[in-house]
Amino acid sequence: MGNSLLDDLIKALTVLPGTGERSARRLAYHLLYKDRQGAQRLLNVLNHALSDLKHCHYCHNFTEHEVCNLCVNPKRDKKILCVVETPIDQNRIEESHSYRGLYFVLMGRLNPIEGTGPRDIAFEQLMKRIHDGVVEEVIIGTSFTNEGELTAHHLAELIKLQGSIKVSRIARGIPSGGELEYVDASTLAWALTERQDCS
Amino acid sequence: MGNSLLDDLIKALTVLPGTGERSARRLAYHLLYKDRQGAQRLLNVLNHALSDLKHCHYCHNFTEHEVCNLCVNPKRDKKILCVVETPIDQNRIEESHSYRGLYFVLMGRLNPIEGTGPRDIAFEQLMKRIHDGVVEEVIIGTSFTNEGELTAHHLAELIKLQGSIKVSRIARGIPSGGELEYVDASTLAWALTERQDCS
Repeated sequence: MGNSLLDDLIKALTVLPGTGERSARRLAYHLLYKDRQGAQRLLNVLNHALSDLKHCHYCHNFTEHEVCNLCVNPKRDKKILCVVETPIDQNRIEESHSYRGLYFVLMGRLNPIEGTGPRDIAFEQLMKRIHDGVVEEVIIGTSFTNEGELTAHHLAELIKLQGSIKVSRIARGIPSGGELEYVDASTLAWALTERQDCS
Repeated sequence: MGNSLLDDLIKALTVLPGTGERSARRLAYHLLYKDRQGAQRLLNVLNHALSDLKHCHYCHNFTEHEVCNLCVNPKRDKKILCVVETPIDQNRIEESHSYRGLYFVLMGRLNPIEGTGPRDIAFEQLMKRIHDGVVEEVIIGTSFTNEGELTAHHLAELIKLQGSIKVSRIARGIPSGGELEYVDASTLAWALTERQDCS
């Protein structure tokens, strides 16, 4: 071909998960020709997001502020903290409209095979977070995959060591091996309601 | 949620074809957390591409130069011009290593239902292009969809009006490696009608 800048764009687009060279070529054509305005908007917002989005001081989710809107919302119950793996999982719980507490987003889960240990996800920050004198219960909302379960187990042990805070796990109404991201809202609601005490 | 910049990014990502709100959320997480370096690279290249990529003076494909590398390649046969709908189609033909001529990329096809007429694709530019005194044959390589066929028919008529230039259409038939059992009736009918003499 020899269209070097076009080839660069196609290659850069393969950064998107599930996008091979062929799909990237279609995306490039779409962005350059079919929806240039949308492409320009994407460019601006991505630029803005990459420079300005940081982690919320309290919940570790993405926000452009020091503390995210959910954490400062006076209507949320500050005594309960639900620990999730990703912002996607948090969003799924929000969509179920069954939870009024706060969150903590780990941004990952333990995965010994891939070498992801407690230091690679925000364990330490979570430990600090739960000692604000307000949190009374931590609900562990990681996935019911092996890695999610390992993370849950690890977290429960750590939190129990700290004494007075209650630890619970969302109920296994979710199919074993399932990822939170793909579960329907009603199942998620059940899993929250029927959470089990870890003691 | 209330993470407004994150929401903006998710919305901007839905510009990508086939990307709904849920996939966009995953893409955002991936770009912001899993592969920030790739995201930064994408940002830079997209910026560069949106400002610097223009249409090749000869073939109308994307290039950062006045004339693209393929059009200036001295090894290509300048007497044959293959007209395709998109850069993706051109790339498919290049990958087949079966064509040594030049191209003309329409960047679309006629679609009366969607209101895409001859002025919305590069018909006029193509008509100018074929009168360089060098092109002897135009191969119409549009799709065998209704719209592609309509475009091909229109183009063939226009070019034939101009006199001396030969017009041809890529062959329709059963795909290479295709089993008759799985080929649709219309393709089979065409394959029979357009059968080639074996002598």
